[in-house]
Amino acid sequence: MSVLQEINPNVRNMKQLEFVVLVRRASQIREELTQGVRKSYKDMIDVSGGDPHRAGVKPLSFVRQVLASCFYPQLMNSNELPVDVRQRAQKLLRGCGGGSVGAYTNTAGISEIVESISEFITRRDGGAQSNPENIYISSGSQWSLTNLLRVLVNNESSPITGVLTPAPCHVSTTLSIMGLGAHIIPYYLNEEQGWELQIEELHRALESAKGICNPVALYVINPGNPTGHVQSRKSMQEVIRFVSEKKLFLLADEVYQDCVYGEKSEFVSYKRVLAEMGPPLSDTLELASFHSASKGPMGECGLRGGYVELVNVDPDVMKYVYTVFSTDTCAPATGQLALDLMINPPQPGDPSYPLYREETQHIRTTVVHNVKRALEVLNSLPGFCCQPVEGGAFAFPRVHLPPKAIQKAKEVGMQPDTFYCMRLLEEAGVLVSPGYEFGQKEGTHHIRFCIMTTVDTMEELLRRLSSFHTQFMKDFS
Amino acid sequence: MSVLQEINPNVRNMKQLEFVVLVRRASQIREELTQGVRKSYKDMIDVSGGDPHRAGVKPLSFVRQVLASCFYPQLMNSNELPVDVRQRAQKLLRGCGGGSVGAYTNTAGISEIVESISEFITRRDGGAQSNPENIYISSGSQWSLTNLLRVLVNNESSPITGVLTPAPCHVSTTLSIMGLGAHIIPYYLNEEQGWELQIEELHRALESAKGICNPVALYVINPGNPTGHVQSRKSMQEVIRFVSEKKLFLLADEVYQDCVYGEKSEFVSYKRVLAEMGPPLSDTLELASFHSASKGPMGECGLRGGYVELVNVDPDVMKYVYTVFSTDTCAPATGQLALDLMINPPQPGDPSYPLYREETQHIRTTVVHNVKRALEVLNSLPGFCCQPVEGGAFAFPRVHLPPKAIQKAKEVGMQPDTFYCMRLLEEAGVLVSPGYEFGQKEGTHHIRFCIMTTVDTMEELLRRLSSFHTQFMKDFS
Repeated sequence: MSVLQEINPNVRNMKQLEFVVLVRRASQIREELTQGVRKSYKDMIDVSGGDPHRAGVKPLSFVRQVLASCFYPQLMNSNELPVDVRQRAQKLLRGCGGGSVGAYTNTAGISEIVESISEFITRRDGGAQSNPENIYISSGSQWSLTNLLRVLVNNESSPITGVLTPAPCHVSTTLSIMGLGAHIIPYYLNEEQGWELQIEELHRALESAKGICNPVALYVINPGNPTGHVQSRKSMQEVIRFVSEKKLFLLADEVYQDCVYGEKSEFVSYKRVLAEMGPPLSDTLELASFHSASKGPMGECGLRGGYVELVNVDPDVMKYVYTVFSTDTCAPATGQLALDLMINPPQPGDPSYPLYREETQHIRTTVVHNVKRALEVLNSLPGFCCQPVEGGAFAFPRVHLPPKAIQKAKEVGMQPDTFYCMRLLEEAGVLVSPGYEFGQKEGTHHIRFCIMTTVDTMEELLRRLSSFHTQFMKDFS
Repeated sequence: MSVLQEINPNVRNMKQLEFVVLVRRASQIREELTQGVRKSYKDMIDVSGGDPHRAGVKPLSFVRQVLASCFYPQLMNSNELPVDVRQRAQKLLRGCGGGSVGAYTNTAGISEIVESISEFITRRDGGAQSNPENIYISSGSQWSLTNLLRVLVNNESSPITGVLTPAPCHVSTTLSIMGLGAHIIPYYLNEEQGWELQIEELHRALESAKGICNPVALYVINPGNPTGHVQSRKSMQEVIRFVSEKKLFLLADEVYQDCVYGEKSEFVSYKRVLAEMGPPLSDTLELASFHSASKGPMGECGLRGGYVELVNVDPDVMKYVYTVFSTDTCAPATGQLALDLMINPPQPGDPSYPLYREETQHIRTTVVHNVKRALEVLNSLPGFCCQPVEGGAFAFPRVHLPPKAIQKAKEVGMQPDTFYCMRLLEEAGVLVSPGYEFGQKEGTHHIRFCIMTTVDTMEELLRRLSSFHTQFMKDFS
């Protein structure tokens, strides 16, 4: 086992992340700044991930008060915390073994919270039934997806299993699929049409897979990451019909469901659209829908809480889903509690409601403002072009790099957009992700950055980016 | 994908847990008790897992005060919490993105905590060097092990990859190995010798694998789960020489390192023993050592924090270890903070020290008492025989079931010890795990229960078990 050649070939085939070199350099620069090395910036702006707290967004008081009380129940003895905070903490602790967040939970999660999630889904989807037995809480939604793929990907099939995956697509999904030895069948989203998913492209992609792999599933993410596109009901109906016709499993990543900013955009779940389409589709199409405590105004990424709801999956297969999830014992209790707080926020009349409303509205207003400003600035910079950001946590502008920059990147052994990001990091102290990581049409280049920041951070980011970009284009003209 | 036959055959080969039927029934009984159904017991005692808080052990105040302060930093403005609690919370938050536990961390964990772990290991191992770059924090140690197995298990090799695994062995490890399509090569621990690992048995097991699989790794767990055995230095040296000679990777599960109760027992890490053996062994043997925040006096299972340290692994392979860990983004921040608090507890002179010392000593005294009482009672019951419990979190007594009971179990389609556990649950309201789950010598039967409980819980458990067992033996004599 001491040599690379002997390790799991699926793992060996996993794309090595170019982004790692950026992260390493960023952490060196942080160190240099701490040591007083002089640079043209005094701090680093890291908007490479969808990580609102890192970018200065404040946690919600209600969420943190309840969690602190769950950790240290003595806090509930004082009157300093609102009564609904104390009641909620008491209620949540009743679901924990021995009344402690330090106890293991059931494999699928704390029963009371799983039931809450099921009720939330039914409410959200206009009454479409949800069964708690089909819900699994996990240490982040990505982890649910990987576990489900472990069931779906048949390593011994010939040809190998294929999964239809958008391009661009955030990298942890593509890495999971590759790591399991499945083939990625990219379907390209149409950038010129605001990164729309087009059904003809799904047909083309599936056709292209013939003889190469055995497609078993279609992965969609709505609202999009990195694209910021929000799907229309009509588009979702088309996807559902395609998936049914081709006998695929639909993996619907809906973690950004609370992040919709477009004036004409609206989030509708695949489960709801499926239910509306009625039998036989609604009784047969196999669907997994993912949600997370990391996104939305709460943005508790570090707590690691996500869930999957499975629809129309064969009971015999469900047993194995249970077994696979059970190998990791359970999701972190804190992430589970966070899910409960996300789906059952304070209601009008509750003592915590006014502050909760103020804080969430502030975040929403800020993000809408950030999106507007980012689009204004980006689309005014020569060489930049950014599609509308209707939802999600990111802007994903295209950057038209000059041939001399592309040549220079080649010389230093980097992808052109990684090269651009590295210069941006070095010269302006801004960490963003290169489009190459996500998959993009040959010859196009992009950057991705988080729009869930404070207004000040966004303004400073856009100022640094504009000034850097102008100089970069001059240097390589 | 709608039928079982189409799913991943490795997953299909995963043993379905008989234990699940016990857990289901336990949760029905809990429900019945809540609804006032009359039984001979008024509450359930669940000692099936290694879950101290569930079994009534209280969380450590220092740990919970710091974590609550990290969640709700306003708590640090009051003087109600000790100053070292506030200082520690401030220090920990400085390592979090944006000063929030809600931010993603690096893939390997919060850098400051990874460095703390590395210093802890060096201290623990008498100065043997530890490099922070070889440490990965994860959502529980089991998760690190699965990730590492994902790198080690080569699905395409012929014959398939094999992993030497103890029998008995706790089930999540064996499930992980099976789920990845590797072959389990059981080596039997010697019950009559206190569940000692005997080197001749390793040779026999390896020999038996010839032609069936390609053995790449040896998994050991010390102190043992479920056995409670603590390995001697001499035994560890033998294991290291065996692993080196057979060119295996050594997976050392050391999560119970703080749980040693035997008067003559002492925990020594494999890393330390390896370092003491000197070159060439200490420079070449590939080792992974696992530790966890779930075990020991802290017992914060629900927070999901564990880590692995890798030793002598090829740098080319390490890159893929990083990639595999990165697919799940990062471990929960709370679990990471808990690890820091575990390895850097309050020191003499700190305001929190007296209470911390009192609480941990109370837990230790309680467990030592519980072990003594459990052994006394079990070994006085006809048909029971329990080896000394030198460490870990469990007693794993052998139970000699009467032929009539074995016959009855067969009739109802259960393993004999599952049948015994089901009756114990039904009639006495006590949930323990059947030995069948762990692997045991043909014709032997065991039960496993947690010894990290309060004194009252242990006394009540032993009272119910004695009375049930006496009646059971009578019924099936």
